[in-house]
Amino acid sequence: MVLSLKDIRNVLVLGCGTLGARVGLRFALSGFQVKMYDIDKDIFPSAKTSQTQLLQYLAKKKLFNPQKTEEVLNSITWTTSPQLAAQEVHLINESVTEDVEVKLKVWEQFGVLSPAYTIFTTNTSFLLPSMFAEASGRPGRFCAFHFHDIFHANVVDIMPHAGTEKWVTELLVALSTVLEQVPVYVEKESPGYIFNSMLIGVLNSACTLLADGIGSVETIDKSWMGNLKTGIGPFGMMDAIGLDTAWHVAKRHEGRVNKKFISLLRQMIDDGKLGVKSGQGFYSYPNPRFKDPNFLS
Amino acid sequence: MVLSLKDIRNVLVLGCGTLGARVGLRFALSGFQVKMYDIDKDIFPSAKTSQTQLLQYLAKKKLFNPQKTEEVLNSITWTTSPQLAAQEVHLINESVTEDVEVKLKVWEQFGVLSPAYTIFTTNTSFLLPSMFAEASGRPGRFCAFHFHDIFHANVVDIMPHAGTEKWVTELLVALSTVLEQVPVYVEKESPGYIFNSMLIGVLNSACTLLADGIGSVETIDKSWMGNLKTGIGPFGMMDAIGLDTAWHVAKRHEGRVNKKFISLLRQMIDDGKLGVKSGQGFYSYPNPRFKDPNFLS
Repeated sequence: MVLSLKDIRNVLVLGCGTLGARVGLRFALSGFQVKMYDIDKDIFPSAKTSQTQLLQYLAKKKLFNPQKTEEVLNSITWTTSPQLAAQEVHLINESVTEDVEVKLKVWEQFGVLSPAYTIFTTNTSFLLPSMFAEASGRPGRFCAFHFHDIFHANVVDIMPHAGTEKWVTELLVALSTVLEQVPVYVEKESPGYIFNSMLIGVLNSACTLLADGIGSVETIDKSWMGNLKTGIGPFGMMDAIGLDTAWHVAKRHEGRVNKKFISLLRQMIDDGKLGVKSGQGFYSYPNPRFKDPNFLS
Repeated sequence: MVLSLKDIRNVLVLGCGTLGARVGLRFALSGFQVKMYDIDKDIFPSAKTSQTQLLQYLAKKKLFNPQKTEEVLNSITWTTSPQLAAQEVHLINESVTEDVEVKLKVWEQFGVLSPAYTIFTTNTSFLLPSMFAEASGRPGRFCAFHFHDIFHANVVDIMPHAGTEKWVTELLVALSTVLEQVPVYVEKESPGYIFNSMLIGVLNSACTLLADGIGSVETIDKSWMGNLKTGIGPFGMMDAIGLDTAWHVAKRHEGRVNKKFISLLRQMIDDGKLGVKSGQGFYSYPNPRFKDPNFLS
């Protein structure tokens, strides 16, 4: 049964971490009925808090009418029951831990429990949809649908594997616009989609320049920001991503990146510097130097 | 004799191509007396036209008072005489052809003709100051002082070679601010300074993704622009740089970039597609798709 955009009403988000909470909220804002599922109910309070805070932030930016807060939050339900979660769901987006075994288990389980018509999408950052398509029991309906941070970098990657049916990718491209995201249609499987493949090149060069003593953290970021007129440079970006995540990504690209890049990040992690989330990375937070209005003067 | 910032009054620009004309105008706008030198007087009219057009552009942007046009242009003189050019000059910035032999000859010549106090700077894009420092006869006063496009990307690289005296780099850092440029102090020689080293990584990835059929030109640019909130993506940037220039840069980094990157650019050049300047590159000009306000929607 081929679904069309108007058939999609009930959406299930698997995994209620940072990204899952944002994805669920984004669907609710666009008028979908959203179920949030996690094996651990203890994660729900922080996910709910982050959704409420996001609505406040959007209201402050005049991007959301705060009178609708209750209506939006009421369209989101929370469950630890896979059976309840899977009921009558039209589309699943999975944001569970970035671990092949965990994702395989989740997709096997929901492949059995979900209605035959449900479309399956994974929000994986670096794994490939072909790794899970067969386990889900419905490879033709399986596709990567990968969000970035949703409310600022409003880009979503649609990346099919070789067996994804064409109507599925077309539906996801159309759905992106409803979700106010820029659709990036990735024609073939590529680890890290498109943006991360380009970003890794920049971060690798920045760390190599630093390790070789060519320039300081601030000089390298100034060079990037002054040329491209962006509010953040490569070291600021790494702090935002988290140095542990950046290290994992660099390790995955080991053959293509400089060893100095990986060992620089490893050293910082060992020193407890993880970026924004630990308060210290290449810069100190909450007031990093690069956000100073005089940084470029 | 150590010079200080206030000693710099007379500036000589060697080479009146696109960048030389901009550098000369920038110094004139900051109140310096500027001499423009070229071996070919036939290049002067186009350089003068580009300076006049730049002043009109700056006036339109409310960044320049057009009543001062005559005053600024009168502080710029033009000569094909090396003797006249070198007279009483405090600082030279050289923007001649990016060719080692040509630059060596120019620096030997001006090393003999210039006063002993003159500071020598090269605006080379990819060569190193150490290649010319000895030929100039005054290695201690020789440094790279590399402008980007000056009026939008207002960044200048200050890159000494091992023998550059410290007061020279310090003076150039201070001078950058007078010229309304973000100083990027490159601590050691590095081909392509800092920004180009990072940029080449992005352009390489973008071309490899295209050659591998992962995404289209527009998809790849959308992914970059939507994530970083910039008005241009990697293919738009290559069109602006010129595909011939991009190819030369890629060739220089042959060991570090993908062969597909170099051959993609070569093929486009052979097809007469050089980017903005030929009207056709990855996009068509003057109205490339990525400048359409709906490009990201």
